[in-house]
Amino acid sequence: MKISLPLILVNFKAYDNALGKKAETLAKTCEKASAEFGCSIAVAVQPGDIYRVSKAVSIPVFSEHIDAVEAGAHTGYVLAKNVKENGAVGTLLNHSEHRIKIDDLEDSVDIARKEGLLTVVCASNDEIAQAAASFDPDFIAIEPPELIGTNISVSSARPELVTSSIQRVNSVSQIPILCGAGIRTGDDVKKAVELGVKGILVASAVTLSKDPYSVLESFCKAIKSQHQ
Amino acid sequence: MKISLPLILVNFKAYDNALGKKAETLAKTCEKASAEFGCSIAVAVQPGDIYRVSKAVSIPVFSEHIDAVEAGAHTGYVLAKNVKENGAVGTLLNHSEHRIKIDDLEDSVDIARKEGLLTVVCASNDEIAQAAASFDPDFIAIEPPELIGTNISVSSARPELVTSSIQRVNSVSQIPILCGAGIRTGDDVKKAVELGVKGILVASAVTLSKDPYSVLESFCKAIKSQHQ
Amino acid sequence: MKISLPLILVNFKAYDNALGKKAETLAKTCEKASAEFGCSIAVAVQPGDIYRVSKAVSIPVFSEHIDAVEAGAHTGYVLAKNVKENGAVGTLLNHSEHRIKIDDLEDSVDIARKEGLLTVVCASNDEIAQAAASFDPDFIAIEPPELIGTNISVSSARPELVTSSIQRVNSVSQIPILCGAGIRTGDDVKKAVELGVKGILVASAVTLSKDPYSVLESFCKAIKSQHQ
Amino acid sequence: MKISLPLILVNFKAYDNALGKKAETLAKTCEKASAEFGCSIAVAVQPGDIYRVSKAVSIPVFSEHIDAVEAGAHTGYVLAKNVKENGAVGTLLNHSEHRIKIDDLEDSVDIARKEGLLTVVCASNDEIAQAAASFDPDFIAIEPPELIGTNISVSSARPELVTSSIQRVNSVSQIPILCGAGIRTGDDVKKAVELGVKGILVASAVTLSKDPYSVLESFCKAIKSQHQ
Repeated sequence: MKISLPLILVNFKAYDNALGKKAETLAKTCEKASAEFGCSIAVAVQPGDIYRVSKAVSIPVFSEHIDAVEAGAHTGYVLAKNVKENGAVGTLLNHSEHRIKIDDLEDSVDIARKEGLLTVVCASNDEIAQAAASFDPDFIAIEPPELIGTNISVSSARPELVTSSIQRVNSVSQIPILCGAGIRTGDDVKKAVELGVKGILVASAVTLSKDPYSVLESFCKAIKSQHQ
Repeated sequence: MKISLPLILVNFKAYDNALGKKAETLAKTCEKASAEFGCSIAVAVQPGDIYRVSKAVSIPVFSEHIDAVEAGAHTGYVLAKNVKENGAVGTLLNHSEHRIKIDDLEDSVDIARKEGLLTVVCASNDEIAQAAASFDPDFIAIEPPELIGTNISVSSARPELVTSSIQRVNSVSQIPILCGAGIRTGDDVKKAVELGVKGILVASAVTLSKDPYSVLESFCKAIKSQHQ
Repeated sequence: MKISLPLILVNFKAYDNALGKKAETLAKTCEKASAEFGCSIAVAVQPGDIYRVSKAVSIPVFSEHIDAVEAGAHTGYVLAKNVKENGAVGTLLNHSEHRIKIDDLEDSVDIARKEGLLTVVCASNDEIAQAAASFDPDFIAIEPPELIGTNISVSSARPELVTSSIQRVNSVSQIPILCGAGIRTGDDVKKAVELGVKGILVASAVTLSKDPYSVLESFCKAIKSQHQ
Repeated sequence: MKISLPLILVNFKAYDNALGKKAETLAKTCEKASAEFGCSIAVAVQPGDIYRVSKAVSIPVFSEHIDAVEAGAHTGYVLAKNVKENGAVGTLLNHSEHRIKIDDLEDSVDIARKEGLLTVVCASNDEIAQAAASFDPDFIAIEPPELIGTNISVSSARPELVTSSIQRVNSVSQIPILCGAGIRTGDDVKKAVELGVKGILVASAVTLSKDPYSVLESFCKAIKSQHQ
């Protein structure tokens, strides 16, 4: 699948208001904002919600994780092949809340590629971003763990980390960079795009908002203002 | 939910022919056998298949695993609450292909109970079965890992392990015991029930069979022959 | 080895002032207090310090952990056999800072027994204490993780947890119980012993003290006052 | 510490004849071969053996692993600082028998550098070797896991993997490459050096040999023949 850039990727995590039926509702809000404001929005959901959310919306759906296993005698792991069949177009990998072994990261990217799933590898800093680039994932998302869930956006507080990550990743391969952690406002998004990222990875600012539609509106408008 | 005993619990694992659309088909075969032969059959499926399989059949659906986390900022874990909302009535825990920390096992059983999910804790031997009993799960399944996937059934090859497990678990609490590993034939099932188990946990004998319906027929008839 | 009870087991963790040469010095202080006040004191040290501390003192030395592997092609794990040869008489297992899989816990207790090492299994609550009893370790230490490193002692704040743990463990086997977490004063120790424990597991109150000898003196005197 | 290249790094693993007193003996054999044949030999030993082996020999001693933690309230982990104080000059990291998370790998290399420990990061293939190079360790060791412990040497069977690893690592940084897995004979070593590696990582060929001295002699002579 081809994802339009810049991308707003909304991570539903395991937030109460982004599970099951509510995951469908929130995904529909994302879909509506995407259509209304003409920007590219995707959602990453619980493994168990991929099927129902994929049926409910036409925007791209990601898994929040896949395990480094293939079909066979494995009990209770999240399979790339199954995630794909249930409607996902891609998956997050190595999120700061779900770090994985370096060998499993390489295997997971390979397995995902083989199954036709896009990969978004999360990296807490520029060195790990560069390392991840060796595996040639489709996206790398810079998220300093200490800013996740805060009101301090990576693009405002640590712009040099974003630019250094872009530079180090590009020294290996031309992989689009997303950034995340602390993204709250359109201004945070604008700064991120100015720094050269191809999108943002966002969670609580959208999922915990009383009005996610308006938050997405401000993000989309910030992106539009940079791309005219 | 109340599960009728004795129970045949079919673990779909990540077998190619038990994923996605094929998971629905196999679950329907299990449902048909359950209705036809009047025995209690449940299925344990990939997290991503719980929703669609639960919609497709009316027999009990289990998750193959849940993680020891509750709703909140957790990315890519399998949530008891979500598994429940998507239609599962229970979950496997600590399968030999997915061992977990003792503290997470206790937490997972507690979280599952709180969310109204049944728990089937897998134990590779009688000591671990007894330990698991301290957490008061709904079922304990004895599965010596060295027999899983073989043609040597635990009930035939290691009957003393089954009886010792029943005895040790019962010294803690009255928890129904299932057994698994190497169960292939009606005779294996018959022996297991004779030893005092309340059901079997089976995977490849059903999922990899060319004719799972006939396999389930033989299992159901073996159970019936013991309960008349 | 036979350990005299009640036991004061001092966990050196990875505290700066309890590493290498300083581990020897602190162990000597423990040895001196043991001799002077006639109470049983043992130390648990970094894997790398077992040899030198064992050479430096004659009180019992424990490892802080062993891995569930035996001699062979394993790189970088802490081997029971090696810990024993280097002078340890026992090991902690499943400390709240080092939780392990339930199957590895059983294996580790078995391997330690085979190699002649005593085992002290840490449990965060009474259910896990009871579960651990199924594996028949030499000691079980109750340490509610939320009190570790605080000034609130388990014996004062949660006496019912201690008595419930003793009761549940004894329903399985007669295994001596230690308790830990928040133990700071002789009074905390006195209360613990009154509740029926056979010793305490202590870390920061001793290792971070400016005067560990005096702390141990107060602990020893509290124990003596209970055992006359 | 400065290590002379090419290096023969002998991994003692947890082999019975390379533990405790026997680790000292084997390390002395390595030391003798190093002196006699004028080649650079180092040993990697169990955490518990670092102190005694460092006292027994003057060749460089490595730890087989360190954990990604620093001094403080951590129980049972292998600390860089402690490994250093006990005499090690470096450590293996991410051995195929001890894979670690990508974030822990980065942290471990950083912590080791801070403590003055050399790092040898093991990589199962060229992509992981390149990724590891982003963290700027002192050495990268290529070891295809499927050849470890076999009689098929990586230098003979997969020379293109060695050259590709050297090339990919050098595209990031000038880090000396070792290779390992299946190295048995002087000829294997000769081929490895011809391919451009700066040394070998070897285990069973030396540790399980009846005559490790002769094995090391053949390795040293093969290296010498390449460096005259």
